[in-house]
Amino acid sequence: MTDCCPSNGLLPVDEAIAQLQQAASSTLPRIEYIHVNQALGRVLAQDMVASLDVPPQANSAMDGYALNIEDIRADASFVLSQRIAAGTAPQALERGTVARIFTGAVIPQNANAVVMQENCQLLADGRVKILSWPTLNSNIRPQGQDIAKGDVILRQGQPLNAAALGLIATIGQDTVAVYQRLKVIYFCTGDELVAANQPLKIGQIYNSNGVLLHNLLTEYGFEAIDGGVIADNLTDTINTLQQAAQQADVVMTTGGVSVGEEDHVKAALTQIGHLDLWKIAIKPGKPLAFGSIGNTPFLGLPGNPQSVFVTFNILARVFLAYKQGQRHNVIPKPVPVACDFEVTKAQSRREYLRVQLVATADGMRLQKHANQSSGVLSSAVWADGFAIIEAHQTVQKGESVGFVSLNNC
Amino acid sequence: MTDCCPSNGLLPVDEAIAQLQQAASSTLPRIEYIHVNQALGRVLAQDMVASLDVPPQANSAMDGYALNIEDIRADASFVLSQRIAAGTAPQALERGTVARIFTGAVIPQNANAVVMQENCQLLADGRVKILSWPTLNSNIRPQGQDIAKGDVILRQGQPLNAAALGLIATIGQDTVAVYQRLKVIYFCTGDELVAANQPLKIGQIYNSNGVLLHNLLTEYGFEAIDGGVIADNLTDTINTLQQAAQQADVVMTTGGVSVGEEDHVKAALTQIGHLDLWKIAIKPGKPLAFGSIGNTPFLGLPGNPQSVFVTFNILARVFLAYKQGQRHNVIPKPVPVACDFEVTKAQSRREYLRVQLVATADGMRLQKHANQSSGVLSSAVWADGFAIIEAHQTVQKGESVGFVSLNNC
Repeated sequence: MTDCCPSNGLLPVDEAIAQLQQAASSTLPRIEYIHVNQALGRVLAQDMVASLDVPPQANSAMDGYALNIEDIRADASFVLSQRIAAGTAPQALERGTVARIFTGAVIPQNANAVVMQENCQLLADGRVKILSWPTLNSNIRPQGQDIAKGDVILRQGQPLNAAALGLIATIGQDTVAVYQRLKVIYFCTGDELVAANQPLKIGQIYNSNGVLLHNLLTEYGFEAIDGGVIADNLTDTINTLQQAAQQADVVMTTGGVSVGEEDHVKAALTQIGHLDLWKIAIKPGKPLAFGSIGNTPFLGLPGNPQSVFVTFNILARVFLAYKQGQRHNVIPKPVPVACDFEVTKAQSRREYLRVQLVATADGMRLQKHANQSSGVLSSAVWADGFAIIEAHQTVQKGESVGFVSLNNC
Repeated sequence: MTDCCPSNGLLPVDEAIAQLQQAASSTLPRIEYIHVNQALGRVLAQDMVASLDVPPQANSAMDGYALNIEDIRADASFVLSQRIAAGTAPQALERGTVARIFTGAVIPQNANAVVMQENCQLLADGRVKILSWPTLNSNIRPQGQDIAKGDVILRQGQPLNAAALGLIATIGQDTVAVYQRLKVIYFCTGDELVAANQPLKIGQIYNSNGVLLHNLLTEYGFEAIDGGVIADNLTDTINTLQQAAQQADVVMTTGGVSVGEEDHVKAALTQIGHLDLWKIAIKPGKPLAFGSIGNTPFLGLPGNPQSVFVTFNILARVFLAYKQGQRHNVIPKPVPVACDFEVTKAQSRREYLRVQLVATADGMRLQKHANQSSGVLSSAVWADGFAIIEAHQTVQKGESVGFVSLNNC
C-alpha cells in the first residue's frame, strides 16, 4: 500500500478529484446506438454535426402579413394575394401585394419583411391596410439563424438531458450514439449489518448503505448491481471481490477501509490487486480506497452513511462519470450564498455541510442542519445542498460560502 | 372560454403557479407498494414512522477502548477483559478493566466512555495504558440519537431521492408506499412538423417538441406516452384528444394555442371540454392553455421549443408534480447570484434567461447566452440554469438576480 498523501497526511479534495479524473479518462466505454426517447442521462459518444440549416428557410416570427418594403404607397393598402400556412411552400410574392403569413411559415420570394397582424387592418373590400410600415427583414428569421449546416451542436462526452435530446431531434435524428452504461457492483461490509425485515439482535443494525448506493448509482445513470454484504473475514472477502471483478466494470464497497482491525477489504485488495488508501481532507468521509482488482477499478467508500453520501457525490461520482465517457458538466459549480450561521472553529478538512436555502429578512440564506455529525441520512434528505466550508476557514454570519445544489426538485 | 387575466392582460407567473397547484391538489393518485431499489424519483404516499431507535443501542463512535471513568487510577493501566466487534453482543464490563471496542460496536454495561485508540498504549504485558483520561460519555453515541422510535422520518408527498431511500432502509424496510406514476399523453400540433429521418419539403421542419417533452416528462418521474402529431384540422384534433383523455391521466399538447387562425386545439377543447387560455407574464412562453376533457386535465404548451422548455419547467411540471401527489420540494428555490450582464430595458413579463455560472475575477457570475430569442434548444443545453429577471425590472452589471439550477450535472 502506498501513501499518496502530502506531509500533513491529508490529500486536498480537489487533488483527489483530479487524480480520480485522470485515472478514469484513459479508456472509453463501447458505443451503442439507441433511440432519443431512451437516451436520457446517457453520455454522447461522438460529436453531433448538423446536416441542415435550422430554420431550413427564412420564416416568419409572427402571425401577420409579408410584403416588400419597397412597395410602400400612400394609402398603405394592398391586395391580399396568397395565404402561407406553416408547413406549406409559398408562391413568389406578387409585387405590390401582401401575403397572409403565420408563425413559422416560409417567407415567399420577393418579400423582405413581415408586419405583425396587430399592426394591420383588414378592409371591407378584402384589402389589407398596413398601419405601421416595417423596416427591412422585420419579423423574419433568416435561414440557418439557429443552427448552420456543419455546426457541431453537441460534443462527445456531453451528458444527454431533455434539452440536448430535443436539439438532436431538431436536426432530424432519432438515434444517438452513446457510451454503454458502466456496470458497478457494490458490496457492504460489516457483520453488524442485517437485511430489511429481519429481527435485530443486540449490536446489529439494518443495512442502509446498500440501498443508498444503489439509488445514487441509478440516479447518476450507472447500472447498479447489488453484490450483498461481505462477511468480516479475509477468505470470503477475497473470493467475493475476485468474482465481482469479472462481472462488472467497477467494484465498490462501503466500510472496511478504516484503520480498525476488523477491516478485511484492505488486506484482500493487497493480495488480489492494488490499493491506495487515501486520507482525504474531506468531512464527513476522510478515508477513500482506490485501486484495482486485475484491470477492474476498485473504489472503497467509508462505512458511515453520511460519509458514503458525501464521498459518493463529491468523489466517486466524478470517477464513474469520467469512466463512463462523460467529459462535460461533471463537477457542479458552487454558487456563493450567504450563511445564516457561523463557523468559529477552523478545521483541517474541507467540510460539506448539509444546508437548506431559507428566505430570511436579509434575503436567501443557508441554514445548516442541527445534527451534522449524525451517521444517518436525515440531514441529507432535509438538505437542499452542500455548503462548502474550506479547510482552515472560519465563516461569519452573513458571509458567503460555496453552495452546491443536491437537485432535490 | 373565460379570460382569467387581470386588466393588464397578463397573469403573473406566481399566480399561475398557485392556480395550477390548487387545481392539481384536489385528488391523490392510487397507492402502490414497491421495493426501495425501484423507487427512485417516486413520491411517498404515507408518513414513514420509525419502528425502532437508531442506533438501537448506545455504540462507539471510534475504534478504541471502553471503560468506566470512575475507575481512574494512578498508572492508568488496565487489564483488557474483552473484545467487542461491531455486530456482537458484549458482556458487561468487568469493573477496573477496559474492553477493546470498534466503531459501531455496542457499549457494554458498566462502561461510560470510549478512549480512541490513538490515545492508548498497548503494554508489553498485554495491559492497556490510557494516555488521556476521558470525560463521561466520550465517543459514545446514545441509543436513539439519530432516530427515536415513533419519529416521522419522512412525510407523505416527499419525493424519494437516494438519501430518502437510504433512510427508509435504516429502519429496516425494503418496501415503500408510493403514488402511481402519472400517465401523461402528449401531442405535437403543426402540419409543418416531420418525423425524424424523413426528407424535408420546403416549409417543413423536424419535430423536436415531441422528443423534448418525452424526456422532460421522463426526467421528472412521469410516464410519457407519445401521441404523435395532430394534423391541423378540427375533426382530427377532436377525435384524437377525446381518445387520449380515456387513455391517460393528463393530456398535453405543444402548439395550437396561439391566436393564429391555424390553431385548432382551442376550438376542439371548447367543443369537447373546457379551456382557459392564460396569457402569462412569462418570457419565453406567454400563452398556456389549461382545461379539461371530461375529467382529464389538459395542458397546452406553446409551440416554440424554448417556450416549451421554460413553460414545462416553470409551470407544467408544478401541476404534474402536485397531481402525482408530491407536496414537498416542488418549486425550486432561486439563489441570488451576481450578473455579468445588464438588463437596460424593463419588460412587462418575467423573463427566464438561459445563463451559465462562470468564475470571474469578481467571483461567480451569471453570463447569458447570446441568443435568447432563438427557437431552438441550443441555449437550454448550454445553460447551467435560469436567471430570473422580474417584470418591470432592470439589472445593472454586478447586481444579483434569482438563479435556478437546471440540474445538468
